[in-house]
Amino acid sequence: MNHLLKDHIETISPLSDEEFAYILSHFVFKKIKKHAFLVQEGDPVKYEYFVLKGCLKAYVADNATGKEFIFQFAAEDWWITDREAFFKRSTATVNIDCLEDCEVLALTLENREKLGVEMWKYEHFLSVKAYWGYISLQKRLQMMIMGSAKDRYENFIAQYPNLFNRIPKSFIASYLGVSRETLSRLYKS
Amino acid sequence: MNHLLKDHIETISPLSDEEFAYILSHFVFKKIKKHAFLVQEGDPVKYEYFVLKGCLKAYVADNATGKEFIFQFAAEDWWITDREAFFKRSTATVNIDCLEDCEVLALTLENREKLGVEMWKYEHFLSVKAYWGYISLQKRLQMMIMGSAKDRYENFIAQYPNLFNRIPKSFIASYLGVSRETLSRLYKS
Repeated sequence: MNHLLKDHIETISPLSDEEFAYILSHFVFKKIKKHAFLVQEGDPVKYEYFVLKGCLKAYVADNATGKEFIFQFAAEDWWITDREAFFKRSTATVNIDCLEDCEVLALTLENREKLGVEMWKYEHFLSVKAYWGYISLQKRLQMMIMGSAKDRYENFIAQYPNLFNRIPKSFIASYLGVSRETLSRLYKS
Repeated sequence: MNHLLKDHIETISPLSDEEFAYILSHFVFKKIKKHAFLVQEGDPVKYEYFVLKGCLKAYVADNATGKEFIFQFAAEDWWITDREAFFKRSTATVNIDCLEDCEVLALTLENREKLGVEMWKYEHFLSVKAYWGYISLQKRLQMMIMGSAKDRYENFIAQYPNLFNRIPKSFIASYLGVSRETLSRLYKS
Protein backbone atom coordinates (compact mmCIF):
# COMPACT_ATOMS: atom_id res chain seq x y z
CA MET A 1 0.00 0.00 0.00
CA ASN A 2 3.09 2.20 0.17
CA HIS A 3 2.53 3.10 -3.48
CA LEU A 4 -0.05 5.56 -2.09
CA LEU A 5 2.79 7.62 -0.64
CA LYS A 6 4.82 7.39 -3.85
CA ASP A 7 1.85 8.46 -5.97
CA HIS A 8 1.19 11.28 -3.53
CA ILE A 9 4.74 12.68 -3.59
CA GLU A 10 4.85 12.25 -7.37
CA THR A 11 1.93 14.64 -7.86
CA ILE A 12 4.67 17.20 -7.09
CA SER A 13 8.09 15.54 -7.39
CA PRO A 14 8.62 12.51 -9.68
CA LEU A 15 10.84 9.86 -8.03
CA SER A 16 12.88 6.86 -9.13
CA ASP A 17 12.15 3.59 -7.29
CA GLU A 18 15.46 3.97 -5.45
CA GLU A 19 14.64 7.49 -4.33
CA PHE A 20 11.25 6.41 -3.07
CA ALA A 21 12.70 3.40 -1.25
CA TYR A 22 15.15 5.75 0.47
CA ILE A 23 12.36 8.15 1.48
CA LEU A 24 10.19 5.29 2.71
CA SER A 25 13.01 3.93 4.90
CA HIS A 26 12.59 7.03 7.09
CA PHE A 27 8.95 6.27 7.90
CA VAL A 28 7.58 3.94 10.57
CA PHE A 29 4.46 1.91 9.84
CA LYS A 30 1.78 1.97 12.55
CA LYS A 31 -1.64 0.38 13.00
CA ILE A 32 -4.17 2.08 15.25
CA LYS A 33 -7.53 0.72 16.32
CA LYS A 34 -10.83 2.50 15.85
CA HIS A 35 -11.46 5.04 18.67
CA ALA A 36 -7.77 5.12 19.68
CA PHE A 37 -5.89 8.41 19.77
CA LEU A 38 -3.10 9.18 17.35
CA VAL A 39 -2.45 12.52 19.09
CA GLN A 40 -3.71 13.46 22.51
CA GLU A 41 -3.84 16.92 24.09
CA GLY A 42 -0.89 17.45 26.45
CA ASP A 43 1.32 14.73 24.94
CA PRO A 44 4.48 15.35 22.90
CA VAL A 45 3.90 15.14 19.14
CA LYS A 46 6.74 13.12 17.67
CA TYR A 47 5.33 12.35 14.26
CA GLU A 48 3.59 13.63 11.22
CA TYR A 49 1.33 10.92 9.75
CA PHE A 50 0.49 9.93 6.20
CA VAL A 51 -2.72 7.88 6.10
CA LEU A 52 -2.56 4.57 4.21
CA LYS A 53 -5.90 3.24 5.39
CA GLY A 54 -8.78 4.42 7.54
CA CYS A 55 -10.22 7.73 8.54
CA LEU A 56 -9.43 10.15 11.39
CA LYS A 57 -10.69 13.37 12.87
CA ALA A 58 -8.70 16.21 14.45
CA TYR A 59 -10.46 18.44 16.95
CA VAL A 60 -10.01 20.98 19.67
CA ALA A 61 -11.98 20.47 22.86
CA ASP A 62 -13.26 23.57 24.62
CA ASN A 63 -12.83 22.54 28.22
CA ALA A 64 -15.13 25.29 29.48
CA THR A 65 -18.16 24.35 27.39
CA GLY A 66 -17.32 20.72 26.59
CA LYS A 67 -17.84 21.50 22.92
CA GLU A 68 -15.64 20.00 20.24
CA PHE A 69 -14.53 21.79 17.12
CA ILE A 70 -13.51 19.35 14.38
CA PHE A 71 -11.08 21.19 12.16
CA GLN A 72 -9.85 18.40 9.93
CA PHE A 73 -10.63 14.93 8.66
CA ALA A 74 -8.01 12.71 7.10
CA ALA A 75 -8.31 9.50 5.11
CA GLU A 76 -6.17 7.66 2.56
CA ASP A 77 -3.62 9.98 0.98
CA TRP A 78 -3.83 12.78 3.57
CA TRP A 79 -1.36 14.02 6.17
CA ILE A 80 -2.38 14.67 9.72
CA THR A 81 -0.78 15.75 13.00
CA ASP A 82 -0.85 18.66 15.44
CA ARG A 83 1.32 20.74 13.11
CA GLU A 84 2.23 23.43 15.56
CA ALA A 85 3.28 21.04 18.32
CA PHE A 86 5.11 18.81 15.84
CA PHE A 87 7.04 21.70 14.36
CA LYS A 88 7.82 23.46 17.64
CA ARG A 89 8.52 20.21 19.51
CA SER A 90 5.88 21.19 22.08
CA THR A 91 2.90 19.27 23.43
CA ALA A 92 -0.38 18.79 21.61
CA THR A 93 -3.21 21.27 21.97
CA VAL A 94 -5.48 19.17 19.77
CA ASN A 95 -6.75 15.60 19.69
CA ILE A 96 -6.70 13.24 16.74
CA ASP A 97 -8.59 9.98 16.94
CA CYS A 98 -9.50 7.14 14.61
CA LEU A 99 -13.00 6.84 13.16
CA GLU A 100 -12.00 3.43 11.71
CA ASP A 101 -9.10 1.00 12.15
CA CYS A 102 -6.18 2.88 10.64
CA GLU A 103 -2.78 2.28 9.08
CA VAL A 104 -0.37 5.18 8.83
CA LEU A 105 3.22 5.99 7.95
CA ALA A 106 4.82 8.12 10.65
CA LEU A 107 7.74 10.53 10.09
CA THR A 108 9.71 12.32 12.81
CA LEU A 109 10.67 15.98 12.44
CA GLU A 110 14.36 14.96 12.35
CA ASN A 111 13.73 12.63 9.42
CA ARG A 112 11.50 15.13 7.68
CA GLU A 113 14.26 17.73 7.86
CA LYS A 114 16.94 15.19 6.93
CA LEU A 115 15.05 14.17 3.79
CA GLY A 116 14.56 17.82 2.87
CA VAL A 117 18.28 18.56 3.25
CA GLU A 118 19.40 15.44 1.37
CA MET A 119 16.89 15.64 -1.48
CA TRP A 120 15.86 18.91 -3.06
CA LYS A 121 12.88 17.03 -4.50
CA TYR A 122 11.57 16.28 -1.02
CA GLU A 123 12.03 19.87 0.17
CA HIS A 124 10.18 21.02 -2.95
CA PHE A 125 7.38 18.55 -2.25
CA LEU A 126 7.08 19.93 1.31
CA SER A 127 7.08 23.49 0.05
CA VAL A 128 4.39 23.04 -2.59
CA LYS A 129 2.27 20.84 -0.32
CA ALA A 130 2.31 23.44 2.46
CA TYR A 131 1.37 26.18 -0.01
CA TRP A 132 -1.59 24.15 -1.29
CA GLY A 133 -2.61 23.43 2.27
CA TYR A 134 -2.58 27.14 3.03
CA ILE A 135 -4.78 27.88 0.02
CA SER A 136 -7.32 25.21 0.91
CA LEU A 137 -7.43 26.34 4.53
CA GLN A 138 -7.97 29.92 3.43
CA LYS A 139 -10.90 28.77 1.33
CA ARG A 140 -12.33 26.98 4.34
CA LEU A 141 -11.94 30.10 6.47
CA GLN A 142 -13.81 32.15 3.87
CA MET A 143 -16.52 29.49 3.76
CA MET A 144 -16.95 29.48 7.51
CA ILE A 145 -17.22 33.24 7.65
CA MET A 146 -19.02 34.19 4.46
CA GLY A 147 -20.46 30.96 3.10
CA SER A 148 -23.99 29.69 3.58
CA ALA A 149 -24.54 26.22 5.04
CA LYS A 150 -25.00 25.04 1.44
CA ASP A 151 -21.67 26.56 0.34
CA ARG A 152 -19.90 24.86 3.21
CA TYR A 153 -21.51 21.53 2.47
CA GLU A 154 -20.51 21.76 -1.20
CA ASN A 155 -16.99 22.77 -0.25
CA PHE A 156 -16.80 19.73 2.04
CA ILE A 157 -17.87 17.40 -0.76
CA ALA A 158 -15.22 18.97 -3.02
CA GLN A 159 -12.52 18.75 -0.35
CA TYR A 160 -13.33 15.26 0.87
CA PRO A 161 -14.95 13.38 -2.03
CA ASN A 162 -16.00 9.85 -0.99
CA LEU A 163 -15.82 10.62 2.72
CA PHE A 164 -19.41 11.68 3.22
CA ASN A 165 -20.68 8.13 3.75
CA ARG A 166 -17.78 7.05 5.96
CA ILE A 167 -18.07 9.77 8.61
CA PRO A 168 -20.92 10.00 11.14
CA LYS A 169 -23.14 12.91 10.14
CA SER A 170 -22.85 14.54 13.55
CA PHE A 171 -19.09 14.92 12.97
CA ILE A 172 -19.63 16.41 9.54
CA ALA A 173 -22.13 18.85 11.03
CA SER A 174 -19.55 19.86 13.66
CA TYR A 175 -16.90 20.36 10.97
CA LEU A 176 -19.26 22.53 8.95
CA GLY A 177 -20.56 24.47 11.94
CA VAL A 178 -24.18 23.60 11.11
CA SER A 179 -26.84 21.65 12.99
CA ARG A 180 -27.47 17.97 12.28
CA GLU A 181 -30.92 18.91 10.89
CA THR A 182 -29.52 21.49 8.49
CA LEU A 183 -27.03 18.92 7.23
CA SER A 184 -29.82 16.38 6.61
CA ARG A 185 -31.74 18.94 4.59
CA LEU A 186 -28.64 19.70 2.51
CA TYR A 187 -27.76 16.16 1.55
CA LYS A 188 -31.33 15.23 0.73
CA SER A 189 -31.69 18.18 -1.64
CA MET B 1 15.04 49.17 3.03
CA ASN B 2 15.81 45.89 1.26
CA HIS B 3 17.48 44.67 4.43
CA LEU B 4 13.92 43.94 5.60
CA LEU B 5 13.72 41.12 3.06
CA LYS B 6 17.17 39.83 3.99
CA ASP B 7 16.33 39.82 7.70
CA HIS B 8 13.05 38.11 6.90
CA ILE B 9 14.58 35.27 4.84
CA GLU B 10 17.34 34.90 7.43
CA THR B 11 14.86 34.03 10.17
CA ILE B 12 14.82 30.70 8.27
CA SER B 13 17.83 30.56 5.91
CA PRO B 14 21.02 32.55 6.66
CA LEU B 15 22.44 34.18 3.50
CA SER B 16 25.73 35.68 2.37
CA ASP B 17 25.55 39.21 0.91
CA GLU B 18 26.14 37.73 -2.55
CA GLU B 19 23.33 35.23 -2.15
CA PHE B 20 20.95 37.93 -1.02
CA ALA B 21 21.96 40.26 -3.87
CA TYR B 22 21.23 37.43 -6.29
CA ILE B 23 17.81 36.77 -4.74
CA LEU B 24 16.98 40.46 -4.72
CA SER B 25 17.83 40.79 -8.42
CA HIS B 26 14.73 38.69 -9.15
CA PHE B 27 12.35 41.14 -7.47
CA VAL B 28 10.81 44.28 -8.93
CA PHE B 29 10.34 47.33 -6.72
CA LYS B 30 6.91 48.99 -6.88
CA LYS B 31 5.27 52.00 -5.24
CA ILE B 32 1.51 52.05 -4.89
CA LYS B 33 -0.61 54.95 -3.69
CA LYS B 34 -3.07 54.79 -0.82
CA HIS B 35 -6.47 53.37 -1.97
CA ALA B 36 -4.96 51.83 -5.14
CA PHE B 37 -5.37 48.13 -5.84
CA LEU B 38 -2.43 45.75 -5.78
CA VAL B 39 -4.69 42.86 -6.85
CA GLN B 40 -8.14 43.25 -8.33
CA GLU B 41 -10.82 40.59 -8.75
CA GLY B 42 -10.86 39.24 -12.30
CA ASP B 43 -7.31 40.33 -13.18
CA PRO B 44 -4.34 38.00 -13.68
CA VAL B 45 -2.10 37.73 -10.61
CA LYS B 46 1.48 37.96 -11.82
CA TYR B 47 3.23 38.63 -8.55
CA GLU B 48 3.64 37.72 -4.94
CA TYR B 49 4.48 40.84 -2.89
CA PHE B 50 6.78 41.43 0.05
CA VAL B 51 5.83 44.64 1.87
CA LEU B 52 8.67 47.10 2.52
CA LYS B 53 6.48 49.99 3.64
CA GLY B 54 2.80 50.64 4.21
CA CYS B 55 -0.21 48.58 5.05
CA LEU B 56 -2.71 46.65 2.91
CA LYS B 57 -5.89 44.68 3.27
CA ALA B 58 -7.02 41.59 1.34
CA TYR B 59 -10.72 40.90 1.11
CA VAL B 60 -13.41 38.97 -0.68
CA ALA B 61 -16.48 40.89 -1.78
CA ASP B 62 -19.80 39.10 -1.62
CA ASN B 63 -21.49 40.46 -4.73
CA ALA B 64 -24.93 39.32 -3.61
CA THR B 65 -24.92 41.12 -0.25
CA GLY B 66 -22.27 43.78 -0.91
CA LYS B 67 -20.50 42.62 2.25
CA GLU B 68 -16.72 42.46 2.46
CA PHE B 69 -14.80 39.83 4.33
CA ILE B 70 -11.27 40.99 5.18
CA PHE B 71 -9.16 37.87 5.51
CA GLN B 72 -5.69 39.35 5.80
CA PHE B 73 -3.77 42.51 6.58
CA ALA B 74 -0.16 42.98 5.56
CA ALA B 75 2.42 45.56 6.60
CA GLU B 76 6.22 45.71 6.69
CA ASP B 77 7.75 42.25 6.58
CA TRP B 78 4.65 40.38 5.36
CA TRP B 79 3.86 38.67 2.07
CA ILE B 80 0.58 39.21 0.29
CA THR B 81 -1.11 38.16 -2.95
CA ASP B 82 -4.07 36.10 -4.13
CA ARG B 83 -2.16 32.89 -3.50
CA GLU B 84 -4.45 30.57 -5.37
CA ALA B 85 -4.59 32.71 -8.51
CA PHE B 86 -0.84 33.37 -8.33
CA PHE B 87 0.01 29.71 -8.01
CA LYS B 88 -2.50 28.44 -10.57
CA ARG B 89 -1.85 31.30 -13.00
CA SER B 90 -5.56 32.11 -12.93
CA THR B 91 -7.40 35.37 -12.32
CA ALA B 92 -7.95 36.92 -8.90
CA THR B 93 -11.01 36.09 -6.81
CA VAL B 94 -9.95 38.55 -4.10
CA ASN B 95 -9.06 42.22 -3.87
CA ILE B 96 -6.02 43.71 -2.20
CA ASP B 97 -5.82 47.46 -1.71
CA CYS B 98 -3.55 49.90 0.06
CA LEU B 99 -4.53 51.48 3.37
CA GLU B 100 -1.45 53.72 3.13
CA ASP B 101 1.09 54.63 0.42
CA CYS B 102 3.00 51.40 -0.05
CA GLU B 103 6.34 50.11 -1.29
CA VAL B 104 6.64 46.44 -2.17
CA LEU B 105 9.02 43.96 -3.76
CA ALA B 106 7.23 41.88 -6.39
CA LEU B 107 8.27 38.37 -7.46
CA THR B 108 6.84 36.43 -10.42
CA LEU B 109 6.02 32.71 -10.10
CA GLU B 110 8.75 31.94 -12.66
CA ASN B 111 11.36 33.72 -10.56
CA ARG B 112 10.06 32.20 -7.34
CA GLU B 113 10.43 28.72 -8.83
CA LYS B 114 13.78 29.57 -10.41
CA LEU B 115 15.19 30.73 -7.07
CA GLY B 116 13.87 27.58 -5.40
CA VAL B 117 15.53 25.33 -8.01
CA GLU B 118 18.82 27.20 -7.95
CA MET B 119 19.12 27.62 -4.19
CA TRP B 120 18.08 24.95 -1.75
CA LYS B 121 18.09 27.66 0.92
CA TYR B 122 15.34 29.54 -0.87
CA GLU B 123 13.22 26.42 -1.38
CA HIS B 124 13.67 25.67 2.32
CA PHE B 125 12.63 29.21 3.22
CA LEU B 126 9.47 28.82 1.09
CA SER B 127 8.72 25.46 2.66
CA VAL B 128 9.05 26.58 6.29
CA LYS B 129 7.27 29.87 5.64
CA ALA B 130 4.28 28.11 4.09
CA TYR B 131 4.12 25.68 7.00
CA TRP B 132 4.12 28.53 9.52
CA GLY B 133 1.47 30.29 7.48
CA TYR B 134 -0.68 27.18 7.60
CA ILE B 135 -0.33 26.95 11.37
CA SER B 136 -1.24 30.59 11.92
CA LEU B 137 -4.22 30.33 9.57
CA GLN B 138 -5.42 27.24 11.41
CA LYS B 139 -5.26 29.17 14.66
CA ARG B 140 -7.30 31.94 13.09
CA LEU B 141 -9.89 29.43 11.87
CA GLN B 142 -10.20 27.99 15.38
CA MET B 143 -10.54 31.51 16.77
CA MET B 144 -13.29 32.42 14.34
CA ILE B 145 -15.24 29.27 15.11
CA MET B 146 -14.61 28.66 18.79
CA GLY B 147 -13.13 31.88 20.14
CA SER B 148 -14.99 34.66 21.89
CA ALA B 149 -14.73 38.22 20.55
CA LYS B 150 -12.10 38.78 23.25
CA ASP B 151 -10.06 35.75 22.12
CA ARG B 152 -10.15 36.98 18.54
CA TYR B 153 -9.11 40.46 19.53
CA GLU B 154 -6.18 39.15 21.57
CA ASN B 155 -5.16 36.86 18.74
CA PHE B 156 -5.21 39.85 16.39
CA ILE B 157 -2.95 41.85 18.68
CA ALA B 158 -0.57 38.88 18.85
CA GLN B 159 -0.62 38.35 15.08
CA TYR B 160 -0.35 42.00 14.10
CA PRO B 161 1.43 43.84 16.92
CA ASN B 162 1.70 47.58 16.20
CA LEU B 163 -0.99 47.50 13.53
CA PHE B 164 -3.95 48.30 15.74
CA ASN B 165 -3.47 52.06 15.53
CA ARG B 166 -2.72 52.09 11.81
CA ILE B 167 -5.86 50.35 10.59
CA PRO B 168 -9.35 51.91 10.69
CA LYS B 169 -11.32 50.17 13.43
CA SER B 170 -14.14 49.24 11.08
CA PHE B 171 -11.70 47.10 9.07
CA ILE B 172 -10.39 45.40 12.19
CA ALA B 173 -13.97 44.67 13.24
CA SER B 174 -14.62 43.12 9.80
CA TYR B 175 -11.48 41.00 10.08
CA LEU B 176 -12.53 39.78 13.53
CA GLY B 177 -16.16 39.23 12.59
CA VAL B 178 -17.38 41.47 15.44
CA SER B 179 -19.35 44.71 15.49
CA ARG B 180 -17.61 48.07 15.72
CA GLU B 181 -19.18 48.55 19.19
CA THR B 182 -17.88 45.22 20.48
CA LEU B 183 -14.40 46.11 19.26
CA SER B 184 -14.52 49.48 21.08
CA ARG B 185 -15.49 47.72 24.31
CA LEU B 186 -12.60 45.30 23.90
CA TYR B 187 -9.84 47.82 23.36
CA LYS B 188 -11.01 50.07 26.14
CA SER B 189 -10.98 47.22 28.64
